[in-house]
Amino acid sequence: MGGEFAFIDRIRARAGASGALLGIGDDAALWHPGPDTDQVVTSDLLLEGMHFDLAWTPLPDLGRKALAVNLSDVAAMGAVARWAVLSLGLPGDPEPFWPLVEAFLDAADAAAVTLVGGDTCASRAGLVVSVTVIGEVPAGQAVTRAGARPGDGVWVTGTPGESAAGLALLKGRDAAISPEHRERLVRRHLDPTPRVAEGVRLRDVGVTAMIDVSDGLAGDLGHVLAASGVGACLEADALPLSPALRAYCAAVHTDESTDNAVDAAAFVLGGGEDYELVFAVPPEAEPRVEGLLASGAVEACRIGRFEAESGLRLRRAGQVRPIAPRGYEHFE
Amino acid sequence: MGGEFAFIDRIRARAGASGALLGIGDDAALWHPGPDTDQVVTSDLLLEGMHFDLAWTPLPDLGRKALAVNLSDVAAMGAVARWAVLSLGLPGDPEPFWPLVEAFLDAADAAAVTLVGGDTCASRAGLVVSVTVIGEVPAGQAVTRAGARPGDGVWVTGTPGESAAGLALLKGRDAAISPEHRERLVRRHLDPTPRVAEGVRLRDVGVTAMIDVSDGLAGDLGHVLAASGVGACLEADALPLSPALRAYCAAVHTDESTDNAVDAAAFVLGGGEDYELVFAVPPEAEPRVEGLLASGAVEACRIGRFEAESGLRLRRAGQVRPIAPRGYEHFE
Repeated sequence: MGGEFAFIDRIRARAGASGALLGIGDDAALWHPGPDTDQVVTSDLLLEGMHFDLAWTPLPDLGRKALAVNLSDVAAMGAVARWAVLSLGLPGDPEPFWPLVEAFLDAADAAAVTLVGGDTCASRAGLVVSVTVIGEVPAGQAVTRAGARPGDGVWVTGTPGESAAGLALLKGRDAAISPEHRERLVRRHLDPTPRVAEGVRLRDVGVTAMIDVSDGLAGDLGHVLAASGVGACLEADALPLSPALRAYCAAVHTDESTDNAVDAAAFVLGGGEDYELVFAVPPEAEPRVEGLLASGAVEACRIGRFEAESGLRLRRAGQVRPIAPRGYEHFE
Repeated sequence: MGGEFAFIDRIRARAGASGALLGIGDDAALWHPGPDTDQVVTSDLLLEGMHFDLAWTPLPDLGRKALAVNLSDVAAMGAVARWAVLSLGLPGDPEPFWPLVEAFLDAADAAAVTLVGGDTCASRAGLVVSVTVIGEVPAGQAVTRAGARPGDGVWVTGTPGESAAGLALLKGRDAAISPEHRERLVRRHLDPTPRVAEGVRLRDVGVTAMIDVSDGLAGDLGHVLAASGVGACLEADALPLSPALRAYCAAVHTDESTDNAVDAAAFVLGGGEDYELVFAVPPEAEPRVEGLLASGAVEACRIGRFEAESGLRLRRAGQVRPIAPRGYEHFE
């Protein structure tokens, strides 16, 4: 087939340039920022053998996820993603990798994001996917990690922990669970849903800090604690445990001295790649957040409170113990 | 050593956040666009074994060049680079790669560009460098590839062709030339100077189209011809041949039926990675361009004229012959 240029032409034709002054095809893409906005940028690099294994990762899932992880970061700022840049290092003939690009572009369309640039080339070293997303937020309204105050509630969207259980299943750790639960966990790992609309809605109701869960809830919450100069105490009973994660933990539970809810809490707190949002809700904003929950606009729950005392703690059965905010260290 | 997080902390501390609302360290970086500007974005992916060979590429040169190729694209829009995103896939311990980052950051400082984000991770597949640069240009004033008109002059900055000769030397093609000429050619390949100030100055004097030379002058000029719907005729005698390139071509010249100026012209027209600017100057703007040359603000020369007849031609010794706009195809 036509190699690099033909593949790039195909991406360009499919990407269009919706909303941009110039999309793919000049020295640079060009857009006019929205009136009175700040611009945000985030980027992720995904390398074969490090971040994904093509033995169990379908190319369309990889394409969607490469965009999703960036949309999640933009959402965690309370911003709206607008523009994407996709760079690909492709081992051999580009054509077999088209399903990755197509799924990326379908996901971009669904999020009203336009692919405006990138770089496609051959790779001698496996598949390389580098994505940068640029978004915008009303000037001065971005939600950082630094605004949480003692007394604010610690909230999280959805059901973190499922992605890590799904990864364990993909890696061959067997568990006697239903096909439906298995599929749920695996899909949560391979095809996570970034909380795009939720990020903006939560910004609008006045959350004071927000982060997305990529390295694990405890680790990412730890970044909020550090940036905000506060601590937090979480409630074990309040952690959202999905039916699929409960079933998985019951099936793999081996330590009879503990309840399998302890295992599930470990997945919720330590698992990564959930792409849920953790956020701080000041007391005056709680009714508005409850309103979002009641209307179905956001699925979330309060799992603890920020406190003046530094460090992260977990209360279980009346006892409060410190927990380590562990992030996943790629070089370990 | 501290692995990924320590390396990222070191990058963050060194990068600062000059001019940005948020630099490295939150879910996304944040900046307020300049009043009445358009934003531009460009990106390049550099893979070990494809785009560079660490056997002959010092890490500082690689760091500078990874930024330079993007600054060159921004300059070719007549825009000013503001923000950079640097993603690195590092084989093994990150620390030995610090000189790459430091040189990148020094070059960013020199160009008043702030590193605001990226992603650093381990790689099992050689060194991966992905850079995205965002810039801005007064609204509506970006210079695209599409504005050249018949009668406009074809101009080029500097002395293209030297980079390709330098690469040939690095790859072991020997030539009996002076150490000074050898060094000049090699440096032009390893450490090209993007025409950052020149791009803005040329925009200001009313050039109608512009592109940077990454794949070779003829190939990149071909993109301007296609986008503008015009052709061009170049003058062999007008091509800028540097003393170093002339010396190299004289030393490696073997075909006694031709003049070695033919070899030099082939380097100028077909060589890549020059990061010079090719631009279209309408007759009314020529005095202003001449003024830039006279003041030393831009080094450039006119090498031909755009014409209504499509295709690219070269006039040598009174004869006009078509030449192929060949671009470098990475998958060949």
